[in-house]
Amino acid sequence: MSIAGDATLEEVGEFALIDSLRPIFAQGEHVLLGPGDDAAVVRVKTGHVVVSTDLLIEGRHFRRDWLTAAEVGHRAAAANLSDLNAMGGRAHSLTIGFGAPGDLPVRWALDFSQGFADEAGLVGASVIGGDLTRSDQVLIAVTVIGSCAQAPVVRGGAHPGDVLALCGRQGWAAGGLGVLSRGFRSPKVLVDALRRPEPPYDAGAIAAAAGATAMIDVSDGLIADAGHIARASGVVIEINGDAFEIPEALVALGSAVGVDPMHYILGGGDDHPLLASFPDRTSVPAGWLLIGSVGARQAADEEGERSAVEGEPWVKVNGMSYDGPTGWTHF
Amino acid sequence: MSIAGDATLEEVGEFALIDSLRPIFAQGEHVLLGPGDDAAVVRVKTGHVVVSTDLLIEGRHFRRDWLTAAEVGHRAAAANLSDLNAMGGRAHSLTIGFGAPGDLPVRWALDFSQGFADEAGLVGASVIGGDLTRSDQVLIAVTVIGSCAQAPVVRGGAHPGDVLALCGRQGWAAGGLGVLSRGFRSPKVLVDALRRPEPPYDAGAIAAAAGATAMIDVSDGLIADAGHIARASGVVIEINGDAFEIPEALVALGSAVGVDPMHYILGGGDDHPLLASFPDRTSVPAGWLLIGSVGARQAADEEGERSAVEGEPWVKVNGMSYDGPTGWTHF
Repeated sequence: MSIAGDATLEEVGEFALIDSLRPIFAQGEHVLLGPGDDAAVVRVKTGHVVVSTDLLIEGRHFRRDWLTAAEVGHRAAAANLSDLNAMGGRAHSLTIGFGAPGDLPVRWALDFSQGFADEAGLVGASVIGGDLTRSDQVLIAVTVIGSCAQAPVVRGGAHPGDVLALCGRQGWAAGGLGVLSRGFRSPKVLVDALRRPEPPYDAGAIAAAAGATAMIDVSDGLIADAGHIARASGVVIEINGDAFEIPEALVALGSAVGVDPMHYILGGGDDHPLLASFPDRTSVPAGWLLIGSVGARQAADEEGERSAVEGEPWVKVNGMSYDGPTGWTHF
Repeated sequence: MSIAGDATLEEVGEFALIDSLRPIFAQGEHVLLGPGDDAAVVRVKTGHVVVSTDLLIEGRHFRRDWLTAAEVGHRAAAANLSDLNAMGGRAHSLTIGFGAPGDLPVRWALDFSQGFADEAGLVGASVIGGDLTRSDQVLIAVTVIGSCAQAPVVRGGAHPGDVLALCGRQGWAAGGLGVLSRGFRSPKVLVDALRRPEPPYDAGAIAAAAGATAMIDVSDGLIADAGHIARASGVVIEINGDAFEIPEALVALGSAVGVDPMHYILGGGDDHPLLASFPDRTSVPAGWLLIGSVGARQAADEEGERSAVEGEPWVKVNGMSYDGPTGWTHF
């Protein structure tokens, strides 16, 4: 069935929309039963699955006037694929729950789906199922399923003496948000980074094989996500602020708006680079930037990994607590 | 950390809420890595996973003034567990994406989670991960993962000559909705059925082992879901309206509001019974009600399973097209 591009979801109806989405989502050979039944069935050869889920809400995680539908699709897929990357894994299957108002143009849903499918295709993953409903805001619920070639790399494995390294762009998307939120359109390279993240999808498995002791993808903000590793591992993360080469576009933006460009790098999320600890410098794979080290907590702490030592920050930048914006929390 | 019951999500914050949710979700021994990292890891011994996803939106799928938080939790889990039941499978793992306004009482989120966990516990499934965000409406995105002990039973396998059978309550929840939407409180047994569905979680695997040729759980409505089997299989589903013993409560409700109680049975969803076709009467397991048969389409149809033969309904009740409300569609 073909659908007029300017029709709305309520004009077209649920089943016609589903029919038009089907050809967008190609099914890999591992998919034994794809969309259209009560459930999908996927072949699993590894003896395990790695699973993560994310919600994206219009007005909170994206704005339809700032991003095209395809860009929202790319970002929704990237955020989830990146979570498996951060385990040292790789996605093979995704589901999408999609809620939207009845007056949403069908074209938006189709373009979103194409962007999502294209991003999933970068790692060979298939969209195996979904659900469609009416809601006040556009909302996107993604679950990703994949596997690891070796033991998954968790957040809690960093040890004092490890080195800290980063792989991928960091702060660019936050810069892009800074550009758009001030009504600017340039530097375009930053806006493009917000529209289309480029997570290093091959880097997670390589880091795991190289012996990464802890790993996370930077989605909330560098300081915030480093803090997640620090708390889970019961260590102090020490970031060397001089390790970063600040991209020219962030320098230009910072000058224009009167913001220290390091704020974008330390506080920004949404680029989905990987942050990992390694036993030593020699184990850090090519393409990673050394940005710090892992230290011991000052006071012995027998209460468990998540309890704080009073007054001691979990993350230090150049030896000090960082006072800038550290990232995103909900509620 | 303990949280005051009358606090709101925005007063408590994301991370304190997550800490308080953790003990609610017990982890089965198949869970190699539970919530708290970028992804969870689950052992899979079967060589495959069966996966389904569902979105529930406040005001559309549930009302907070009609259902307690725990009841919404039971229903959200049941709807998803039931999708695997309909494949002849059983769930082992679930994820929850949860969106809510900042002024939602923390107690609501905790009670919802407890109801969800309790329902998942009925089949031994664990909640392995989730995501939490702010949204205008309460929204719940669930993905369920499980396995089948034999080949999954799809919608498209019904053959002319098969018998049609139903396992579980049907029409009770729709009756409960009829009660509440008119401002009544009884018959209470119907309201209770809406609040707490009782899907026959063991019936799916038994039906699959008994040779069920097609199966679906009735969530949209009996006629609507029978139609899904008919279209996918390229057959006519013939329902014998006299096969149903109409529960006394539905008779009473029908008299009170002037509605034929068969409308609840034929049009109602949300009870999650299983509807399946079997090769013959002798293969239908105990506990199933024979409600009809599978017939051939009148005209030969070379165009494929989903094309309609002009004028011929996909589902007939007592030999005729059914004109009542047939179920739920979105948009």
